[in-house]
Amino acid sequence: MCSKVPAHIERKGNGPRSMEEDRRWVRACRPEIRAPGLNDNTADVDRLIRAVERSLGGEVVRVDLTLMRRIPRILRDHRYRVEAVAAREEGAWRLLDLLPLGGGRSLVGAAVDVGTSTVVVRLVDLEAGRTLEEAGFVNPQSEFGEDILTRIHFASRDGGLDTLRRALLDRLNAEIARMADDHGFTADRVYGASLAGNTTMTHLLLGLNPFWICREPYIPAVNRPGLLTAFEVGLGIREQAPVLVFPNVGSYFGGDLIAGILASGMDRSESTAILVDVGTNAEVALGNRDWLMACAGAAGPALEGGVAQMGMMAAPGVIDRVTYRPDSGRLEVHTIGGRPPVGICGSGLIDLVSRLFLAGMIDMRGKFVPDACGSRLRDEEGVPTFEVVPASESGTGGPLTLSQPDVDALMRSKAAMYTILTTVTAMVGLSMQELGRFFVAGTFGSYIDPKSAVTLGMIPDLPLDRFVSLGNTSLEGATRALLEADAAERIDRIRDRITYIELNVNQEFMNLFSAARFIPHTDRSLFPSVAAWESAQGFGD
Amino acid sequence: MCSKVPAHIERKGNGPRSMEEDRRWVRACRPEIRAPGLNDNTADVDRLIRAVERSLGGEVVRVDLTLMRRIPRILRDHRYRVEAVAAREEGAWRLLDLLPLGGGRSLVGAAVDVGTSTVVVRLVDLEAGRTLEEAGFVNPQSEFGEDILTRIHFASRDGGLDTLRRALLDRLNAEIARMADDHGFTADRVYGASLAGNTTMTHLLLGLNPFWICREPYIPAVNRPGLLTAFEVGLGIREQAPVLVFPNVGSYFGGDLIAGILASGMDRSESTAILVDVGTNAEVALGNRDWLMACAGAAGPALEGGVAQMGMMAAPGVIDRVTYRPDSGRLEVHTIGGRPPVGICGSGLIDLVSRLFLAGMIDMRGKFVPDACGSRLRDEEGVPTFEVVPASESGTGGPLTLSQPDVDALMRSKAAMYTILTTVTAMVGLSMQELGRFFVAGTFGSYIDPKSAVTLGMIPDLPLDRFVSLGNTSLEGATRALLEADAAERIDRIRDRITYIELNVNQEFMNLFSAARFIPHTDRSLFPSVAAWESAQGFGD
Repeated sequence: MCSKVPAHIERKGNGPRSMEEDRRWVRACRPEIRAPGLNDNTADVDRLIRAVERSLGGEVVRVDLTLMRRIPRILRDHRYRVEAVAAREEGAWRLLDLLPLGGGRSLVGAAVDVGTSTVVVRLVDLEAGRTLEEAGFVNPQSEFGEDILTRIHFASRDGGLDTLRRALLDRLNAEIARMADDHGFTADRVYGASLAGNTTMTHLLLGLNPFWICREPYIPAVNRPGLLTAFEVGLGIREQAPVLVFPNVGSYFGGDLIAGILASGMDRSESTAILVDVGTNAEVALGNRDWLMACAGAAGPALEGGVAQMGMMAAPGVIDRVTYRPDSGRLEVHTIGGRPPVGICGSGLIDLVSRLFLAGMIDMRGKFVPDACGSRLRDEEGVPTFEVVPASESGTGGPLTLSQPDVDALMRSKAAMYTILTTVTAMVGLSMQELGRFFVAGTFGSYIDPKSAVTLGMIPDLPLDRFVSLGNTSLEGATRALLEADAAERIDRIRDRITYIELNVNQEFMNLFSAARFIPHTDRSLFPSVAAWESAQGFGD
Repeated sequence: MCSKVPAHIERKGNGPRSMEEDRRWVRACRPEIRAPGLNDNTADVDRLIRAVERSLGGEVVRVDLTLMRRIPRILRDHRYRVEAVAAREEGAWRLLDLLPLGGGRSLVGAAVDVGTSTVVVRLVDLEAGRTLEEAGFVNPQSEFGEDILTRIHFASRDGGLDTLRRALLDRLNAEIARMADDHGFTADRVYGASLAGNTTMTHLLLGLNPFWICREPYIPAVNRPGLLTAFEVGLGIREQAPVLVFPNVGSYFGGDLIAGILASGMDRSESTAILVDVGTNAEVALGNRDWLMACAGAAGPALEGGVAQMGMMAAPGVIDRVTYRPDSGRLEVHTIGGRPPVGICGSGLIDLVSRLFLAGMIDMRGKFVPDACGSRLRDEEGVPTFEVVPASESGTGGPLTLSQPDVDALMRSKAAMYTILTTVTAMVGLSMQELGRFFVAGTFGSYIDPKSAVTLGMIPDLPLDRFVSLGNTSLEGATRALLEADAAERIDRIRDRITYIELNVNQEFMNLFSAARFIPHTDRSLFPSVAAWESAQGFGD
């Protein structure tokens, strides 16, 4: 019933970023260079380096041989009136390029969210802090394995790792080249990149064997790849460009989540915040500027089904919002692009089930109430099935329906989510009411209506203004890494401070899980708002 | 009359070097690594890095992606019992390799003297400080241009620079591979290299255009290439291996001379020393631990001829020493390998002319004295020609002779040399008597008998124990760079401290030059020893 990932998602957007230029990671400067003479016969490269050092505030500037070879010609052709592009390294700058002054250039970086299903690239103007373009594509590795485990398996075949790496790199490089071309420059004018992905995706992209990631004791090849160069990574941008690869905490907590923490800013917040990323796994980070804790992965089986399948991106005709009119008893569906409905997406499903509950058509056990549903509920080969959209109004020619097993799956997923949140906060001795911010990460998360999720008891009953949807935090974190001078250090600090806890699906967890398999919960005192919404027979929307 | 450079010179030798292992530039260590477990799931690379950091005393260890990819497999195949090879970088170590423990390996480096005519490679055991093998070959760039200027010209042709670079690199890489193979390992077990050459040779090897070196105001592309990697240089050793390229002071004072200063140790000596390198140019360095001064190049034309042509390497049958028996009036020649004489080499020529002078057969103007020479002096088409070896004793079938123009050329060369030495020391307000050490660099220099050179007035009349022949100082300096931990810093310090002075061939220089065109000098009080040797009619040898 849920939509497939579209092959090519494009989004235009201008990140509202403003920073002091001299704190940037990649910078352009205009060194003042005097032409050589008999009384000043410093060599060309040394002369340039010295001028760039002065211009960048005295720090050491390094230059590699490839660029060194081009410097004398560029300096002389442009009579020493040049602009230098440099990237910050540990305690030094690396010269990346030398351009004629006033040649009209952009200083561009590429932020990449390397997702298992979808890869999103964002080209960023590093000086204006502005997004030039953003494009996504299905991870071409999907052809060789839909999920992480299949790909790890494929990678251990002869040549498999290289096949996966090349498939992704080729597509990514083509996309960057295309985007650069659209903006009138070439990919070698992209002077920096940051890559955020889960542990396995990072391994596959870097050509590191993920074999041991899924085998006890679950050891990645590397957690901190550090600052690499585009050349060694094989990224089709300027060879010398620095490539920041987000570090992993471990096999089940990857760089995408570190990027999420960076994007949320929780590592600098005074009050404690929680960050929840609902993808193919449920991953949670909790903390503030003093401590950070994370857990992920082990509750996976309980989350299979509903939420996992809902975690997909929207497409035209897909139902993303549902409202219920208590007066007319009508369900009103909203579709993307206003097209006739063809399916339902995660956020739409959560809306739908919460509305059916408030209307009394689904009970607190998550079962359809035949009397309340009336003729819309039919028995299809022994399976109670609810008609959401009649055939006459649908875009498929047939009715769109919701079956009892669909709802059951959602009940398991939401119960697992709530149980994880309860368990994680309890571990640090907090109640969920003490959370100052509740960040929801992931494209899926950005469409969820918090009221609906609270109604289902999927997330805690907090004042609604504490919920913040961050969208693609992996991409957002990667973008910040490009724009903040001290991002690499901050990312390392986040990684080092995280206490990673393996979620234990023990008897206590299962007890909590059982208690959460009701709408909103067996303990209704945890959800006072829901009682109010119930008595109003809806949200009043 | 002088020998050609043999195509392949081989020398075995054990440099007497002993250093504390932990000060080395490239080091091996045995990190203690615990196998991972469920309670210690640090990633493989991070685990290794941490252990190597502990083993190397806490400094940061970096590793590049190529090696990172191999680490998990090596660690697991050898059950974490490994040896790590690392090279020192600024404030950190770079991991170069990971080997099974007890696999029996050598830690090898390559020191290269990149000469215009001859290239010499020395493979060094970096732990024992021992030379494994040394081999020389004619610089293959000679095919495209015999001297520096022709090569600079050739390099400016389309593809010329690359042709010159590849010609040298290919030959050098083949030589290193052959040498490694001879010792039972592969070239990727060579973990470091140092390259010392004059400014143009360094440019051509690194693929830097030397076009502006020979054009006013004589600007090299780069003076300080810094620490490069074998990969970027194209050197066929381990890709990640550090390559130290000796810096230049300027177009006419190259890295080979910095290497010479390093080899002499004059930058650390309390007393003032002079270093003289007589190759295709006369280059002089002067100084002590407080100051360094150098000059080179401009006196070139005066040195063309004799000395320049003598600056060649020895070969079997070439006369390298000459003695005179006053009692019998016989000249006794010594040849390399004891073979019948086929020619004479620089050191032999200096010996020969000084003996002929002491025997009265050449006068103080450098002219043959017919009465004293007797039948050995013949007129060959108006040119006085002296028979050194009669046809009956020679290895060529004909007599070996010395003509008046040969001696004239030597007189010009030696006068130029002495004038340069006088000028340079006078510049800093010293007399030559105040020189604590007189270092002679170059293979040519290592064969010169100081007594003979003093007799001719080529070098000052100092106590003979102050003369120290250093042989190939370029190669020796390059070798030290491989073995000393702080060589890179020391080399930079030498470079930065040198005051480079262009020798001005003005009227005063020409006056001094004219005065020096006598044996030993117009002012005989400068050479008291020669008067004593004259009255003894020889050295008593």
